[in-house]
Amino acid sequence: MNHFRPVALEHASRLINHGPTVLITSAHGGHRNVMAAAWSMPVEFTPPRIAVVIDKKTFTRELVMAAGGFALCVPGAALADATFAVGCVSGREVPDKLVRFGLSAQPGPVLGMPVIEEGCCAWMECRLIPERHTEEAYDTCFAEVVAAAADERVFRNGRWAFSDAHADLHTLHHLGAGAFAVAGRTVQARSLG
Amino acid sequence: MNHFRPVALEHASRLINHGPTVLITSAHGGHRNVMAAAWSMPVEFTPPRIAVVIDKKTFTRELVMAAGGFALCVPGAALADATFAVGCVSGREVPDKLVRFGLSAQPGPVLGMPVIEEGCCAWMECRLIPERHTEEAYDTCFAEVVAAAADERVFRNGRWAFSDAHADLHTLHHLGAGAFAVAGRTVQARSLG
Repeated sequence: MNHFRPVALEHASRLINHGPTVLITSAHGGHRNVMAAAWSMPVEFTPPRIAVVIDKKTFTRELVMAAGGFALCVPGAALADATFAVGCVSGREVPDKLVRFGLSAQPGPVLGMPVIEEGCCAWMECRLIPERHTEEAYDTCFAEVVAAAADERVFRNGRWAFSDAHADLHTLHHLGAGAFAVAGRTVQARSLG
Repeated sequence: MNHFRPVALEHASRLINHGPTVLITSAHGGHRNVMAAAWSMPVEFTPPRIAVVIDKKTFTRELVMAAGGFALCVPGAALADATFAVGCVSGREVPDKLVRFGLSAQPGPVLGMPVIEEGCCAWMECRLIPERHTEEAYDTCFAEVVAAAADERVFRNGRWAFSDAHADLHTLHHLGAGAFAVAGRTVQARSLG
């Protein structure tokens, strides 16, 4: 049973508000690829815009520039091994890195970018906003979210709702060298007035 | 007893690699301020460079632009209430927001920006890299880290090492509306070869 439900665009930035490590996919000219990215963030809620660092040496960057877009998929804890693995091998070295690491993807609804649902808790399709200077100087790519969805067991009514019942869907936060912090325990701030 | 130790600059980007919500401080012309920022990320390890979204309407942004720098402080779980609070009140409305919310700061070693150690697990002093277009279009400010330090109980040898013994120093990751995920449980990815 598939638990993914569309996320309203005004809530899309919340999917990465808490800094998860994500999978970036793209496809162009019969090729597709996936890489891991620890470095992404929202830059605007409305319209939903994000920034992500995609090294100019990567195959994914080449595909993103050619396609003018990408998908950002948020892996759950169950995908820790695959998330680390796709960050260690270049898409130029294997025919299809998604197949190589057991990731199944389908074309996204607006741009046709590969979106991963199995093992992930959310995804967004993003249209690149060309910003040549920051792409070159900082490998920082800006993009607008054009479609988003999330697993309703952990994200509903526009909010994350982590619970122990779905620990495999909790987000990963890369500390380095394959060690990830898992977002699980939550605290609610009290108002200091 | 103070457990803060200097962090080598080549390891500084790791302090925010896993996407914690941070406190941004700045000081200029006899004024200082602090705000919360969920949206920051490294963009380079060497030299250590970061990007952070600082809304152009904020008092902090005004100070950052005037001072040409800021400090990024990483609050521990014990500061959840204060982290949420400083994001809800403008520094234009109170004489000193740090005092108002019980945050103690000292001048950083290179730029003299206010660095917070009590309740925090790490900080970095950052020199703004002027990028007028992205500052205006996306409120995204780029900066180079010029000094960094972390609490050795949770960050040592260039790596985060969270343990239950110091749960108050675990990082906060804002989910929205004052709810934070706390980075605690960690998983180590196995190599998929």
